[in-house]
Amino acid sequence: MPTLNAFYAQSGGVTSVINASAAGVIETARRHADRIGTVYAGRNGILGALAEDLIDTGLESAAAIAALRTTPAGAFGSCRYKLKSLEKNRREYERLIEVFKAHGIGYFFYNGGGDSADTCFKVSQLSQSMGYPLQAIHVPKTIDNDLPLTDCCPGFGSVAKYVAVSTLEASLDVRSMAATSTKVFVLEVMGRHAGWIAAAGGLAADHGIPVVILFPEIPFDQPAFLARVDALVKHHGYCTVVVSEGAHHPDGSFLAEQGSKDAFGHAQLGGAAPVVAQMVKEALGYKFHWAVADYLQRSARHIASAADARQAYELGQRAVELALEGKNAVMPTVERTSDSPYEYRIGSAPLDQVANAEKFMPRDYISADGYGISDKGRAYLLPLIQGEDYPAYRDGLPVYVTLQNHPVAKKLPAFEIAK
Amino acid sequence: MPTLNAFYAQSGGVTSVINASAAGVIETARRHADRIGTVYAGRNGILGALAEDLIDTGLESAAAIAALRTTPAGAFGSCRYKLKSLEKNRREYERLIEVFKAHGIGYFFYNGGGDSADTCFKVSQLSQSMGYPLQAIHVPKTIDNDLPLTDCCPGFGSVAKYVAVSTLEASLDVRSMAATSTKVFVLEVMGRHAGWIAAAGGLAADHGIPVVILFPEIPFDQPAFLARVDALVKHHGYCTVVVSEGAHHPDGSFLAEQGSKDAFGHAQLGGAAPVVAQMVKEALGYKFHWAVADYLQRSARHIASAADARQAYELGQRAVELALEGKNAVMPTVERTSDSPYEYRIGSAPLDQVANAEKFMPRDYISADGYGISDKGRAYLLPLIQGEDYPAYRDGLPVYVTLQNHPVAKKLPAFEIAK
Repeated sequence: MPTLNAFYAQSGGVTSVINASAAGVIETARRHADRIGTVYAGRNGILGALAEDLIDTGLESAAAIAALRTTPAGAFGSCRYKLKSLEKNRREYERLIEVFKAHGIGYFFYNGGGDSADTCFKVSQLSQSMGYPLQAIHVPKTIDNDLPLTDCCPGFGSVAKYVAVSTLEASLDVRSMAATSTKVFVLEVMGRHAGWIAAAGGLAADHGIPVVILFPEIPFDQPAFLARVDALVKHHGYCTVVVSEGAHHPDGSFLAEQGSKDAFGHAQLGGAAPVVAQMVKEALGYKFHWAVADYLQRSARHIASAADARQAYELGQRAVELALEGKNAVMPTVERTSDSPYEYRIGSAPLDQVANAEKFMPRDYISADGYGISDKGRAYLLPLIQGEDYPAYRDGLPVYVTLQNHPVAKKLPAFEIAK
Repeated sequence: MPTLNAFYAQSGGVTSVINASAAGVIETARRHADRIGTVYAGRNGILGALAEDLIDTGLESAAAIAALRTTPAGAFGSCRYKLKSLEKNRREYERLIEVFKAHGIGYFFYNGGGDSADTCFKVSQLSQSMGYPLQAIHVPKTIDNDLPLTDCCPGFGSVAKYVAVSTLEASLDVRSMAATSTKVFVLEVMGRHAGWIAAAGGLAADHGIPVVILFPEIPFDQPAFLARVDALVKHHGYCTVVVSEGAHHPDGSFLAEQGSKDAFGHAQLGGAAPVVAQMVKEALGYKFHWAVADYLQRSARHIASAADARQAYELGQRAVELALEGKNAVMPTVERTSDSPYEYRIGSAPLDQVANAEKFMPRDYISADGYGISDKGRAYLLPLIQGEDYPAYRDGLPVYVTLQNHPVAKKLPAFEIAK
């Protein structure tokens, strides 16, 4: 069989373990040097392919690639860019094929979420539609945990662990202060459409913390919410609210859009947390504090879940094996076989069923009252935050690798990328 | 010598290592059972003494007390309450003496910041002014790092480590995304008056991150700031802004007060971070993200500095030793003798010189341009974030102890605490 090169790129919002998937792809490819030549990484995702801006990962040392396992964010750069359909922008696909042909690329590994799965699926169809032999495998990644056909998505477990730990720690702080100061703490977490991340805050409730979760799946009911907060404060002396950025009113408008304006009349600056905190203050008079975790939550490799980091690597590894088995248009998946003890196997799913589908929290993972997680939700979440996988430290800070990212010499004329 | 009991209380905003000081006090007292009887903790700080709401720490197991070393927040509850002067509220002092007398208390250990040092100093004068023999020792604690006469304050090193690690991690995230998405990330940190915490973000700059720090010590210069951000984004493709909650305009008004109002005309909800982010967006057009760490930063025991946790314990331990040496009205301190290798000894300072004084960042710890830290600042900060001191984990979450906090039977009539 001829030796073909591989293309690998990172897409969409990055995570604290997406580089572990990159390590899985690159190390596995290196172990099959008889079949796979060089892994070229796209600089800034698929844009790197369109711009023929390729990185020669073959020039990185084994130690540097291994260090990706404990380095957060996207080592090759990521992008938010979705290919249009073949009908609408045929020249982009032609360009991809020119670039792949010029660099002997026969394997395409795309590491991303739902939109990226769509891009990967379109690329996987190029063999048939444009006569260029290519195998495209999608490596799942999204903190939002909203890809279908896989039990979970790499990146999510680590955010869940960050949110659960942070909720527990900040709640202990509030509990200490509640007698004379802050009684309600509001933590805003990511998840525009699905409440998986917010749900992780519910794990702190198992440690005696009164937690109220505002899910995007449950339309906000202000009087009921305030009554709940009030009851918890009266009983426990304090409470913690974990609000998803996607929490919204029954009419669909986000809590974060509640119309705050600056002195110049410009639209509101900030998130759901300050809105909820202010609401509590006005209705109940309790002193509050609020935090918005934003990028901190998805880059917090220092508190990554060992289970998550391991799966991220395994799915990258499996993607290469699937390619070597001749597969195209598939995504390796996590198939859970047992909650406790946690057991899973790596399976695979056809990409056309993954692309553009979103997996929401099942209603029965949420408690009946809508403000917490159920036993089922807990049984789902707990295995995903198991284990610590600390990075090495030097001089007080984690040792995160920055690759050399040597560019591959261009062979083609420049290409203008559609905005 | 007679056996006297001790009173210990936590005061003001809590930290991730104040309980380590509590462990230092209690374990050291237990080792001197011939001199110190029971350590009674005040429930919710000094309020516990006024209300005769005492906790019998003698009923806690050795394992539970040892677990305080890795448990964040205030195990006995804290409070924000400052005693008035003896002239203004004599009955409060009389009450304290009644309570101490009723429970055989001869040692007073108060664990807090500047305001608390003032309270502790007032109590230390009761021997003389009211004829009750009592030794009062202050145990320093404040994330703000603003106590004089000590090289640093327990609690600060761990916040500094959290901020340095978070700044590094989130910046790697932004760097990954900058080609097509977020170019400026703004992280708001605590420090209403002094920029010690914000300064810690500058340690990420040593890892190649373009960081702009907005200190309370440097009045905000909007055009210069925007020019700096623009230059960094043009050169690096992105930048990170670490803004202290205390950053302010030349007229003294906080950035956070920039007049944003909600739909009902209520005062602004939120912090400096969204204000700065919006400013960047409007002037430069760069896509932004922002985070407000709030309580997460000071409760993050999971990423505590080992140096900080050790000193917190040692200062608690030394407080008891000072009492046994017959001292009154003093505070154990950290005296640095070498930056590299980091060496220090435990000293002590007279409380009257500690109370109500604030230590700001020396100007020469800040870079000449006012947006970063100098080599001197770096040499000061680096030793304080050294080492990791991870808590134990069970089922994916840290094992934090909640004490039993058995109340001591009251012997006195109730007392109404002044509001």
